[in-house]
Amino acid sequence: MSTFSAGRAGNALNRIEQSPLFQGSVIFIIVLSAITIGAKTYELPPLADRLLPYLDNAITVFFLTEIVLRFLACDNRRRFFTDGWNVFDTLVVVGSLIPLDNADAVLIGRLLRVFRVLRLVSVVPELRSLINALLKSIPRMGHIALLMFIIFYIYGAVGSMFFAGINEALWGDVAISMLTLFRIATFEDWTDVMYETMATFPLSWIYYLTFIFLTAFVFLNMMVGTILDVMTREFHRDSDDQAQRERDEIVNRLEVMERQIGEIREHLIGSDGGGRN
Amino acid sequence: MSTFSAGRAGNALNRIEQSPLFQGSVIFIIVLSAITIGAKTYELPPLADRLLPYLDNAITVFFLTEIVLRFLACDNRRRFFTDGWNVFDTLVVVGSLIPLDNADAVLIGRLLRVFRVLRLVSVVPELRSLINALLKSIPRMGHIALLMFIIFYIYGAVGSMFFAGINEALWGDVAISMLTLFRIATFEDWTDVMYETMATFPLSWIYYLTFIFLTAFVFLNMMVGTILDVMTREFHRDSDDQAQRERDEIVNRLEVMERQIGEIREHLIGSDGGGRN
Amino acid sequence: MSTFSAGRAGNALNRIEQSPLFQGSVIFIIVLSAITIGAKTYELPPLADRLLPYLDNAITVFFLTEIVLRFLACDNRRRFFTDGWNVFDTLVVVGSLIPLDNADAVLIGRLLRVFRVLRLVSVVPELRSLINALLKSIPRMGHIALLMFIIFYIYGAVGSMFFAGINEALWGDVAISMLTLFRIATFEDWTDVMYETMATFPLSWIYYLTFIFLTAFVFLNMMVGTILDVMTREFHRDSDDQAQRERDEIVNRLEVMERQIGEIREHLIGSDGGGRN
Amino acid sequence: MSTFSAGRAGNALNRIEQSPLFQGSVIFIIVLSAITIGAKTYELPPLADRLLPYLDNAITVFFLTEIVLRFLACDNRRRFFTDGWNVFDTLVVVGSLIPLDNADAVLIGRLLRVFRVLRLVSVVPELRSLINALLKSIPRMGHIALLMFIIFYIYGAVGSMFFAGINEALWGDVAISMLTLFRIATFEDWTDVMYETMATFPLSWIYYLTFIFLTAFVFLNMMVGTILDVMTREFHRDSDDQAQRERDEIVNRLEVMERQIGEIREHLIGSDGGGRN
Repeated sequence: MSTFSAGRAGNALNRIEQSPLFQGSVIFIIVLSAITIGAKTYELPPLADRLLPYLDNAITVFFLTEIVLRFLACDNRRRFFTDGWNVFDTLVVVGSLIPLDNADAVLIGRLLRVFRVLRLVSVVPELRSLINALLKSIPRMGHIALLMFIIFYIYGAVGSMFFAGINEALWGDVAISMLTLFRIATFEDWTDVMYETMATFPLSWIYYLTFIFLTAFVFLNMMVGTILDVMTREFHRDSDDQAQRERDEIVNRLEVMERQIGEIREHLIGSDGGGRN
Repeated sequence: MSTFSAGRAGNALNRIEQSPLFQGSVIFIIVLSAITIGAKTYELPPLADRLLPYLDNAITVFFLTEIVLRFLACDNRRRFFTDGWNVFDTLVVVGSLIPLDNADAVLIGRLLRVFRVLRLVSVVPELRSLINALLKSIPRMGHIALLMFIIFYIYGAVGSMFFAGINEALWGDVAISMLTLFRIATFEDWTDVMYETMATFPLSWIYYLTFIFLTAFVFLNMMVGTILDVMTREFHRDSDDQAQRERDEIVNRLEVMERQIGEIREHLIGSDGGGRN
Repeated sequence: MSTFSAGRAGNALNRIEQSPLFQGSVIFIIVLSAITIGAKTYELPPLADRLLPYLDNAITVFFLTEIVLRFLACDNRRRFFTDGWNVFDTLVVVGSLIPLDNADAVLIGRLLRVFRVLRLVSVVPELRSLINALLKSIPRMGHIALLMFIIFYIYGAVGSMFFAGINEALWGDVAISMLTLFRIATFEDWTDVMYETMATFPLSWIYYLTFIFLTAFVFLNMMVGTILDVMTREFHRDSDDQAQRERDEIVNRLEVMERQIGEIREHLIGSDGGGRN
Repeated sequence: MSTFSAGRAGNALNRIEQSPLFQGSVIFIIVLSAITIGAKTYELPPLADRLLPYLDNAITVFFLTEIVLRFLACDNRRRFFTDGWNVFDTLVVVGSLIPLDNADAVLIGRLLRVFRVLRLVSVVPELRSLINALLKSIPRMGHIALLMFIIFYIYGAVGSMFFAGINEALWGDVAISMLTLFRIATFEDWTDVMYETMATFPLSWIYYLTFIFLTAFVFLNMMVGTILDVMTREFHRDSDDQAQRERDEIVNRLEVMERQIGEIREHLIGSDGGGRN
């Protein structure tokens, strides 16, 4: 097959793939797939129980066809997998190929089929742009998360050091202590935990109050601040860009005028004394 | 009735409808209506119990009269129902027409009368503008809500798949699982739910922590960010508009000056060399 | 006493009142007053118990002297009570005059003495400006609070209508229902309340989820947004003012230049064609 | 040793200290140190138990060497301790020198070793700048914290005054009351506390609702607002600075042009009438 005919076939496929009908039926199949996943958690009549695997296989075939079609419709097939969303879609579809009749892999297979619902994100552009905005905040979020992890680790080590003897289930080792601290950070029955250790260490409220202050009030807010900032920047980008463009235009016009005035001045007065100093 | 006399009568009605006295009495009747609704939830002396239906009917008649009056006062009666608030008021008033003495409809009738209190929002301009600001954020909120629903659905399906055998009341099917997950997102006794499943699946804390991280920390904050952004934009619109107007004025003045300088330059030096390049 | 000598005495008093020593001792006495209030909640040795009333009286006399001094130091005594902080200080001091030995009024007297601690806010300028910023947000907050009250009232009436038979202690009348709803809005054991009513009305989760969505997510965030906005505006006022001043300066300079260029143009070319169109 | 050779040795040390290999091994040792701290909270096999003290000593020696090296590499050794991070690192290292074999000091020694993990913050530049941003918000946060403390103290004193007889464990004295109030501010089982006092004082819900409103809704949001503002300013500093620079450039260009136009005008028309008024 020559490159030319490949391109022409690609264009025809492209037109199919971009058509509202095709997009709509993809969304419909994803929603249908989500419903079959949810339906399996209910007690089903025997007929539905027997029909579901066939429906499941049909959906898998549809998704496989769709991804192959999209791959063929892609102008530059080498760049297909440089787009993260394409990689994600392909992984989800390949994950669905695990058969459900194998007794061992049935749970893994069902679990991987759940991720098909996430394909809704990659298909609806608004959701995709939301996730993209969120992904942009990850580098900054990562540093705050690392800082929070350090705080959790230090408090976890200290908590395990002092309170392990009081309640092994809550403070047994540094990992269990960190889980307990996460619970305290969400304010979930944290006073029960505190009153228990205060019976032995009356000053242990300092431990809890400083921890709550650092995590729930300070670092959590830093995380909130980061997400808000990334989202606000996304929303305001247009108006900020416009203000920027307008300032640039003002500066450009000023430059032109300044040059013209300089020329007039030189023509009339001569270049004595220098226009700028 | 000729269009002319209709317009004149409309004007007179308009004056009545816009008078502070009329507005005040409408608010008074709404508050009175709210009090009668609240009063019915208490044990009342027999006299009050007998008088309340009469008061209720009087309020219904008043609201009916008011909405008819406002409809007649409207300059363009066809546009009356294009304003969402008018439609809302009419629905609330029509809903109140269900009689309370019919034994079957009594609960429905009482329920619909409760919505009369919401008429306070449509009458007080400040509340109306708050709600309008909120309604503007719905399209953006909708996408975040859809994304959250997908997260809930996926975690609900996975939760039901693995934990249904552990606690049928919490993880029985995907709908119950999603209610349990909502509870976890509000941090309400979520550790009890976690400790129960950790007894069987020791690593299930990953399920809970990733879910809390995604919903309570990330997506909830996106929702907060959207509301904050919509409100801030509403508040700052005046000052942003002013900055915009001033930049526009600067650009306009610069254009005038540039033209004038160009004319001067051409007059003095001639059009050689080109003012702009 | 002539106005002149009053002014001179006022100046001398003013100098005393504004001195760091005087300000410091006022803060010291307020803190001492706060400590005596706290000390009374502990079991005290008999000696301290006997000395506390004398200390309390001494503090009352000091505060009385201070407020009289400030009143006399005020340049325009008629304006003294137009400042809300002066009115507040006077009320707190007058409230402290209730004697503590009267058996009936002892609790009222102690309660009023607690408010002396709040004088710290009126004395420290940073705290005063924080409170002033907060007071500015009250009008806007008021509308949101009214909207929230309407939501609470409607849900309270509906809740009492349907659930009063299920749990009289939680849904007995509209007031108790609103307290229960406030508890739900803070996520405090709200699932227990929900599961109880879901046993009778399986769809009542809609009632709770819409309520939580409206109050905890939407309106609460509007309140957060208002406070953030008021505070941000307070913080950014300087930089916003500077940007405003700079834009004004640019516009002014442009006006001057435009006039001068117009004069030059008219001098060289004449007034044909009009400078501006 | 002459100053010259000290400088040359300093340079060589500086090159070692700034090398990625050295930085990487410091981070590796800190992480290793963190792991040994966490490992001690688990039941360890006897061999590991015997080896850990040697590893601990090796880490202590490494940290000591590193801080001495950094001190020697510093160009101006007197300024070394003016940098807060250097002081912090030195204190952490010195704190680690307490031997772990002394029975009395073993807990203190282990506690001080935990703070070694915090050295990760002083080594990773991104974390350091996050903490620096946080430290900048402390003055403003301090005032809000003082205001909150006053609110807590007043409510604590009033609570202890009225409710001490109802539940000694929750309202015994002003300190215990404040801890109970902190619990209420985090919404942790606050209704249990309220229902208990409402049995005696039916109106005590006013006490709880006003407290929750003041602390959880108002002041906490002020704290959130402060952190958000400090972080946003940090993030937006670049774009704000650019807008500022551009406005400055516009003003500068305008000044130059204004002067030139003034000269032209004076040359052509003469100084009658005055260019500026």
